[in-house]
Amino acid sequence: MSCRLRGRKEEWDVRASSLARNTFNPIRDIIETLRIQPNPNKSYIPLSVGDPTAFGNLQPSENIIDAICDTAKLNESRNYGPTIGHWDARQAVAEYSAHQGSVTADDVILCSGCSHAIDLALSVIADVGQNVLIPRPGYLIHKTLGEGLGIIIKYYDLLPDKNWQVDLESLENQIDENTAAIIVNNPSNPCGSVYTRQHLEDIIDVASRYRVPIIADEIYEHFVFSDHEFTALSSLSKDVPVLTCSGVTKRFLVPGWRLGWVIIHDRQNILRKEVRNGLLSMSTRILGPNTLMQKALPRILKETPQSFFDDTMRFIESQARLAYTELKKAPGLRPIMPQGSMYMMIEIKTSSFPKFDNELQFISQMCNEQSVLCIPGKCFNYPNFMRIVLTVPEDILREACHRITKFCEDHILKQHLKKMDHDVVSIVNDEKNVKSKQNLLKNIT
Amino acid sequence: MSCRLRGRKEEWDVRASSLARNTFNPIRDIIETLRIQPNPNKSYIPLSVGDPTAFGNLQPSENIIDAICDTAKLNESRNYGPTIGHWDARQAVAEYSAHQGSVTADDVILCSGCSHAIDLALSVIADVGQNVLIPRPGYLIHKTLGEGLGIIIKYYDLLPDKNWQVDLESLENQIDENTAAIIVNNPSNPCGSVYTRQHLEDIIDVASRYRVPIIADEIYEHFVFSDHEFTALSSLSKDVPVLTCSGVTKRFLVPGWRLGWVIIHDRQNILRKEVRNGLLSMSTRILGPNTLMQKALPRILKETPQSFFDDTMRFIESQARLAYTELKKAPGLRPIMPQGSMYMMIEIKTSSFPKFDNELQFISQMCNEQSVLCIPGKCFNYPNFMRIVLTVPEDILREACHRITKFCEDHILKQHLKKMDHDVVSIVNDEKNVKSKQNLLKNIT
Repeated sequence: MSCRLRGRKEEWDVRASSLARNTFNPIRDIIETLRIQPNPNKSYIPLSVGDPTAFGNLQPSENIIDAICDTAKLNESRNYGPTIGHWDARQAVAEYSAHQGSVTADDVILCSGCSHAIDLALSVIADVGQNVLIPRPGYLIHKTLGEGLGIIIKYYDLLPDKNWQVDLESLENQIDENTAAIIVNNPSNPCGSVYTRQHLEDIIDVASRYRVPIIADEIYEHFVFSDHEFTALSSLSKDVPVLTCSGVTKRFLVPGWRLGWVIIHDRQNILRKEVRNGLLSMSTRILGPNTLMQKALPRILKETPQSFFDDTMRFIESQARLAYTELKKAPGLRPIMPQGSMYMMIEIKTSSFPKFDNELQFISQMCNEQSVLCIPGKCFNYPNFMRIVLTVPEDILREACHRITKFCEDHILKQHLKKMDHDVVSIVNDEKNVKSKQNLLKNIT
Repeated sequence: MSCRLRGRKEEWDVRASSLARNTFNPIRDIIETLRIQPNPNKSYIPLSVGDPTAFGNLQPSENIIDAICDTAKLNESRNYGPTIGHWDARQAVAEYSAHQGSVTADDVILCSGCSHAIDLALSVIADVGQNVLIPRPGYLIHKTLGEGLGIIIKYYDLLPDKNWQVDLESLENQIDENTAAIIVNNPSNPCGSVYTRQHLEDIIDVASRYRVPIIADEIYEHFVFSDHEFTALSSLSKDVPVLTCSGVTKRFLVPGWRLGWVIIHDRQNILRKEVRNGLLSMSTRILGPNTLMQKALPRILKETPQSFFDDTMRFIESQARLAYTELKKAPGLRPIMPQGSMYMMIEIKTSSFPKFDNELQFISQMCNEQSVLCIPGKCFNYPNFMRIVLTVPEDILREACHRITKFCEDHILKQHLKKMDHDVVSIVNDEKNVKSKQNLLKNIT
């Protein structure tokens, strides 16, 4: 063919969109760069996987399985639902979420898991070029989702020495004219913090003064250890619009079943019709979550016994205490006791391990020697820390802690060990804590 | 507080993002403007709902329900899977899709239904400001999804008098330097057309010459009436990269269960790593479809008997013949016999109904008098037509056809009726078709 065709390309040239290229999951990338090769002589223990069902020791309540089977047999479980979800499922979520403040079925948009809920909330509330504030350290799905959409991600700091409370000054300093939303993650992944009512009120106060809506990522709502209490952020807001994201995935131990939701809290009608309609429009992109789960949802939410939740939390809290106690003995580490969720952050005093340039090298070498994998702080934008998951079986967690401690002992700078010995002597001299000494000596030598 | 806070807004001002505002479902809007009020004295028959399970007469095969129940009891059905889907589920899709050409599990990305698959494919292959060509008439989810993403939607024409084949000249004319993809929907919603091998090759030839990838929306693959054959577009392509979108929703009669997929066909490795990685990245936004469905998928795809599919298609084809035969008798209408899928397009000769300015008025008045709702052509960017769904129970379809015919008789311009009488007389005079005359007279009078 001799004539040049209008609009014809000489060569094939197909690229991925900027949306796809910017939807970048840093965790996968970081883990890949670790080039880990677990020691073949030791069983592999991934303390990295944020999935409470990964090891099979935590099982959902029987009633959930029954609800699914019964529902699958019903005609009405199979057809398309409204894209925001069936009314009876949304009504059940509204009742289940009464602790968040006044909620009706009209305020609920069902999603394909909590990630999708966050995606929906972010994609409606923030526009290209606007910015959204997320916590540091924080779960980077917020960054992945936001940056994919062309939203600028800014960080406010959490304070490790104050139970990871928000540094309110840092939060306030990050807000500018283009701030579309603040994401608050409580209880926190990766920190395990649970904020007090007062602290949440302080956060809301900042948002209210600057007139910035809040996206409350509360997928770990009710994941709270004894002596702490979960307060829904939305329940405290008088004016700040709050989009609360949650779901059944974690608490009901069926993360793969992908049923989450956004709940609109907007007491002063600030979001108006436009944002509500925006959420509705965005829900048409995937035509709503699986209707089998939707139709089983009222039974799942109402019939699951409190004892099931209590058992789960008792287990996770006991695991947290175990890991905290064990890892306090590891030279060069500083575990921070969580108050909830299912994670623990551990500081790696990198100056004690001069062999390693950063926590990434520490973690990959630990995996190569001890076959224990933790998530490096870099994945949460927080170097010199690592995160462990507390939901693995008790004996595996205990073994992992021993191996981590062994690794620290093997690699800590000798003069740091001596300093620790000196500390131990001090402790003994002070006659303050004999048990500490025994533990330290046992593990150091 | 007296000092002005930096970045503080004087008033609350929260808007929806352009993504949300541009994700606009025209069908909902058009249907709302119809202001229909079905006649309370007649049962309401929505021939509008594109859901084969809506009336309860079509039921999924028993083995699917069993597969779900059995799978729900397995630990591995509950945890997070890879975001592109579990390997065994992707492998099952690859085997099920062998008619599309060589497919491996690595070429499959599982999605939350076929809408999500199209969203994924579009969002990766086309960038803001690029254009994508879609058929006219066509299912407007393509427009909704594309325009939301800032992609420009252009239209190529289908030819109603050539069984809705693509007007290849129109297709070629629409391509320009910024064309990112052509969407081909075969079998078609709303047209019910099934393209021949030769016609698909002609379409591919255009795409190949202009070097434009194709998104093949084949959710109605295998929905084909006797004497027609479905050919997967990808199976014919030598160079053009094809992203094929399909799923279990329609064929297995579980549309609400949201399990679809994108299959990458790229024989010349034109998409390279970037587009594949883009699809992978985009799948992280919702962390993959429901794993219960994923884990049941191999059984669903392998164990569902061919007789189940045959029964469904026999029923739909028989319904198509019924509706075609009945509606040919309606004065002022011209039904176009489909070759597959589950829809029929019907031309409304609006000049015969001068009472109504357009097909929207015709359709709303028909619903208000006869309680039968059809989807106006405007919803498919194709005025003067309406679409009916063929999967409703037979007696309901028959009743609907009678009511539609009655409505046409009531409202057709009298001189048109006379012209029809004259036509009938001609037919009789020609002694060509006595039966036609009887039918016409019976229904006109």
